Amino acid sequence: MQQVTGKISITTHGRKLYDITAEVAAQIKRSGFQTGLMSLYIQHTSASLLINENYDHDVLVDMEAFFNRLVPDGDPLFIHTVEGPDDMPAHVRSALTQTHLSIPVLDGKAALGQWQGVFLYEHRHVPSQRQVLVHILGE
Amino acid sequence: MQQVTGKISITTHGRKLYDITAEVAAQIKRSGFQTGLMSLYIQHTSASLLINENYDHDVLVDMEAFFNRLVPDGDPLFIHTVEGPDDMPAHVRSALTQTHLSIPVLDGKAALGQWQGVFLYEHRHVPSQRQVLVHILGE
Amino acid sequence: MQQVTGKISITTHGRKLYDITAEVAAQIKRSGFQTGLMSLYIQHTSASLLINENYDHDVLVDMEAFFNRLVPDGDPLFIHTVEGPDDMPAHVRSALTQTHLSIPVLDGKAALGQWQGVFLYEHRHVPSQRQVLVHILGE
Repeated sequence: MQQVTGKISITTHGRKLYDITAEVAAQIKRSGFQTGLMSLYIQHTSASLLINENYDHDVLVDMEAFFNRLVPDGDPLFIHTVEGPDDMPAHVRSALTQTHLSIPVLDGKAALGQWQGVFLYEHRHVPSQRQVLVHILGE
Repeated sequence: MQQVTGKISITTHGRKLYDITAEVAAQIKRSGFQTGLMSLYIQHTSASLLINENYDHDVLVDMEAFFNRLVPDGDPLFIHTVEGPDDMPAHVRSALTQTHLSIPVLDGKAALGQWQGVFLYEHRHVPSQRQVLVHILGE
Repeated sequence: MQQVTGKISITTHGRKLYDITAEVAAQIKRSGFQTGLMSLYIQHTSASLLINENYDHDVLVDMEAFFNRLVPDGDPLFIHTVEGPDDMPAHVRSALTQTHLSIPVLDGKAALGQWQGVFLYEHRHVPSQRQVLVHILGE
């Protein structure tokens, strides 16, 4: 058994879910592993990771609508507003979703379910450069 | 160090938390590993995984009551309703809980805390067949 | 590739986020690994783990304010109140955050982002002794 590491860099342009399933697949292919475990880790606290349905785009719209209602920008509850009204909401949204994900590798591929995709969830409105670290263990 | 893979298949009959702690224990026993790390991955976006108290059944009742209030079925906020009023709420509930879990293996067993159990959280009302992939690393 | 295991014990004195980044760093240093994957697992269902910003203390204050509003103590929705008004809210807060985290190890260190820290989130008001299991895979 061996391990390989990598990185996925994503330029975001505003708050939304970015499908990174293809980038994830490319990292596994590059490893050459047939069986193993892939771990993704995002090095930010205002963007996060999420496994979600990637078939109907409406799911992405509704997901954002839900989080927007649950953690509204400019909520007077928050005192940490140094970077704007979406600053603290971005940290809360990250806490409610995932900073890391592990996905089994089977037959040389990420063993996602039929309707699953891997998403980077950008919670800030300003464009950002986001880094997702990749660790793959396998053989 | 070696790895083994497996699968836990669960037939669900409506929305609730299903205790899969025994199935998890059986997978570790089958591996023969004394020390390692077990990862579980659910291949769905309308059912999820959760570590929760498995001593008092009221905890399961209350957990469902909370999620039912936070993400109500038939919420007019949602446009993705193709599979019914519990379709999009199931995706949101999955996003708020876990698609995967990793649990240390010590002394040949899942190193769960005294009151912890492993649960599959079915968020749909219709009966479903759910697949949880198992990856165990250890020796 | 090898694995090492360890444990971080934290004495908590009331509900708040406890920064355990230094304890995490010490565990990696002790392993001697330069490259790998560290997994943390908390053996409780009323305390959890969270990656969060550790630069501005106001973020911790606001995070707690958000969870306090979302899952209020003494909510009449709950029937599981055997250990008090913060009992069931602690379980829900744990479900909404993390029971485990995996963080890549690079250059002999946890590959945290610039503003990231690792926190134990105590959800009970009474002092508690909390156990976080450590599994590090690497070389």
